[in-house]
Amino acid sequence: MTSNSAPPTPEAARSAGAASGMPKVTMIGGGQLARMTHQAAITLGQCLRVLAASDSDPAAQVSADIVLGSHDELDDLRRAAAGAAALTFDHEGVPLQHLRALEAEGVAVLPPSKALHFAQDKLAMRVRLAELGLPVPEFADLAGDRTAARARLAEFGAANDWEIVIKAVRGGYDGRGVWLVDGADEALAVFDEYPSDAPALLAEQKVPMRRELSAMIARSPFGQGAAWPVVETIQRHGQCAVVLAPAPDLSDDVAKQAQQMALRLAGELGVVGVMAMELFETVDGELVVNELAMRPHNSGHWTMDGAVTSQFEQHLRAVLDYPLGNTAPTAPLTVMANILGAPSAPEMSMDERLHHLMARMPEAKVHLYGKGERRDRKIGHVNIVGRPGESMESVRERAERAAQWMSRATWTDGWDVHS
Amino acid sequence: MTSNSAPPTPEAARSAGAASGMPKVTMIGGGQLARMTHQAAITLGQCLRVLAASDSDPAAQVSADIVLGSHDELDDLRRAAAGAAALTFDHEGVPLQHLRALEAEGVAVLPPSKALHFAQDKLAMRVRLAELGLPVPEFADLAGDRTAARARLAEFGAANDWEIVIKAVRGGYDGRGVWLVDGADEALAVFDEYPSDAPALLAEQKVPMRRELSAMIARSPFGQGAAWPVVETIQRHGQCAVVLAPAPDLSDDVAKQAQQMALRLAGELGVVGVMAMELFETVDGELVVNELAMRPHNSGHWTMDGAVTSQFEQHLRAVLDYPLGNTAPTAPLTVMANILGAPSAPEMSMDERLHHLMARMPEAKVHLYGKGERRDRKIGHVNIVGRPGESMESVRERAERAAQWMSRATWTDGWDVHS
Repeated sequence: MTSNSAPPTPEAARSAGAASGMPKVTMIGGGQLARMTHQAAITLGQCLRVLAASDSDPAAQVSADIVLGSHDELDDLRRAAAGAAALTFDHEGVPLQHLRALEAEGVAVLPPSKALHFAQDKLAMRVRLAELGLPVPEFADLAGDRTAARARLAEFGAANDWEIVIKAVRGGYDGRGVWLVDGADEALAVFDEYPSDAPALLAEQKVPMRRELSAMIARSPFGQGAAWPVVETIQRHGQCAVVLAPAPDLSDDVAKQAQQMALRLAGELGVVGVMAMELFETVDGELVVNELAMRPHNSGHWTMDGAVTSQFEQHLRAVLDYPLGNTAPTAPLTVMANILGAPSAPEMSMDERLHHLMARMPEAKVHLYGKGERRDRKIGHVNIVGRPGESMESVRERAERAAQWMSRATWTDGWDVHS
Repeated sequence: MTSNSAPPTPEAARSAGAASGMPKVTMIGGGQLARMTHQAAITLGQCLRVLAASDSDPAAQVSADIVLGSHDELDDLRRAAAGAAALTFDHEGVPLQHLRALEAEGVAVLPPSKALHFAQDKLAMRVRLAELGLPVPEFADLAGDRTAARARLAEFGAANDWEIVIKAVRGGYDGRGVWLVDGADEALAVFDEYPSDAPALLAEQKVPMRRELSAMIARSPFGQGAAWPVVETIQRHGQCAVVLAPAPDLSDDVAKQAQQMALRLAGELGVVGVMAMELFETVDGELVVNELAMRPHNSGHWTMDGAVTSQFEQHLRAVLDYPLGNTAPTAPLTVMANILGAPSAPEMSMDERLHHLMARMPEAKVHLYGKGERRDRKIGHVNIVGRPGESMESVRERAERAAQWMSRATWTDGWDVHS
């Protein structure tokens, strides 16, 4: 693997850890990813420090080391970083100039700003991937002069029979900042109505796809890489709903190709920590890169119960330049299903719903985030580890049934859930 | 299973939970058991509240809900219990009269004081077990008038060829409060030198034993019971060093007998939560009850990586009257080895030792407690989950090698470790 980078290492600040002599990691953002990273930190003899907006954030509810503040404020970031061996992220929203300032002050920002740039800026990512010869959909840059950009959109759309998607270059997640447009009029309307002071747009070819995959890997500053099995992700309403691990009926060659692409890219960009490379598998069986996330990712939640090393422990190992843990699955099949806020919160409390689920499915591994219920908000997930000889369809049915119950207090008989 | 008890249930205080609507559990004591219970609480959408003596206690380092105080002070216990759905324990040291006072005030003390009594008082436990027809070693009560008690010791010792052990009725753990005496002179000397204001003593027949076992079970207020596989525990210097799960070469009948004894006793005593019944397997293959612990226990640490449901999650489920989780092992063999403080702390930091272990053994599951290093102090543990077809001897060798390294920064080639 090529490594063209020497990111700052955590050695310098290492001794400034807790009384136990273990290093301190700071995570920016107090969401569920930080919450679950804290669980992993406890095992490693640490306590995760979290920069959270509120003490009711999922991670702030459970960690003993909370810095309240904003990820947009350099001073808050500085306070959170003080004495930490590494500074890392629960989300991609931290302004890059702040991270560069912290790096200049000697903070071990991991992944480093120069890598994180490509997770924050979808256009830069596509340009860089294309330079590296990695497969990305055709795309058009819609930044700059509005009139010229509109003309580029019209040209790109026509060239692709208007089978295109419009995306904000920055700030989108879980389906936000993505417009699935149906034809020229709708595409141009999205462009025309888009505020000129918002992040730039790009247009992208809609890939004729069979399904979505995710290749989750980790990379340490030392340059060690580790890949979990490639998974299939099932999206609903533009966000991840279900993850099948490993991706069913995926050839070893294609799986290996996806892992190699992710490991190579992480090396080229100087990524440190875990990284999810979201991929389309086209109807022709080709792989195309869709998105990158340089942090623990929804497509890796199955590793908490289905792999020797979870993505959260691995992320800590990587940012601390520990050797990486074994990524082998502990069972042939694991399915993760997100628990989403229902259109209207069920009358039955979450506590009671959990009680009933435990009675009906003693083997379900439920992970709750301590979040209030809002429509389609990710408030938890369920992992089901397959029984010996069980089919993926059966494991998935159990996982979806459990998640559906936790979301809505209704049992379904199958997994083909539409809302 | 017989249940002659109706312990207070957590329903009343249940709605007084966190913003997320999940219940709050308070654990008395801030040690590693509370630390690991907090990890399990996070998964269930909760944050464990901990009554800790110091904010550097293992659990206080990592939980967002710490009450500083003493388990000997009723007011501190009250503060910790306020608004909690259940009050439970990291150790057996809380004065029973305080727990009775809390129960009278409506606190759901789980296990209830009437059950916990038998885990606190070894004499009461032996008397009760004998009444229930459960096998205990012969014993003699050495409380009361010193002269009469000394005569009882002399008589009991002679009747057992001085193959006896002297134990403090209360307060012993990890080999403290236990005297392995060699002959009449030593036994009588222990008795004569023992302070008259300390907890009473008892003498007990030294059982000709093949090995020690532990039957770990859980019981809910509803009366549901669940048993993990019976394990073998290997003691060194009077404390647990290694746990083999399941106990090798244990017949199904004897294993089932141990589980049934533990489940029956939990029902008879009204235990709520997890309970470890420590047993001797005699040279004749009989089982004799040695000790009881009504809390997560060292002999159950293997469940964190080797069973579908860990003892920590199960304890929370039980005290909240949730249905209990699946206790099935996730692998044929798991071995736990304690990481103990070395006679003199190694020059290499714990952080560096962990680094090296991860490099050498990527599959080791290390759990660190955030404790300072002191000779023979339990500061962490390692779980090794066996590979398919691997022998128990081989899994054990890996676990002992890992734990030895973490303790002393020296590698051993075998597991026959003496210090």
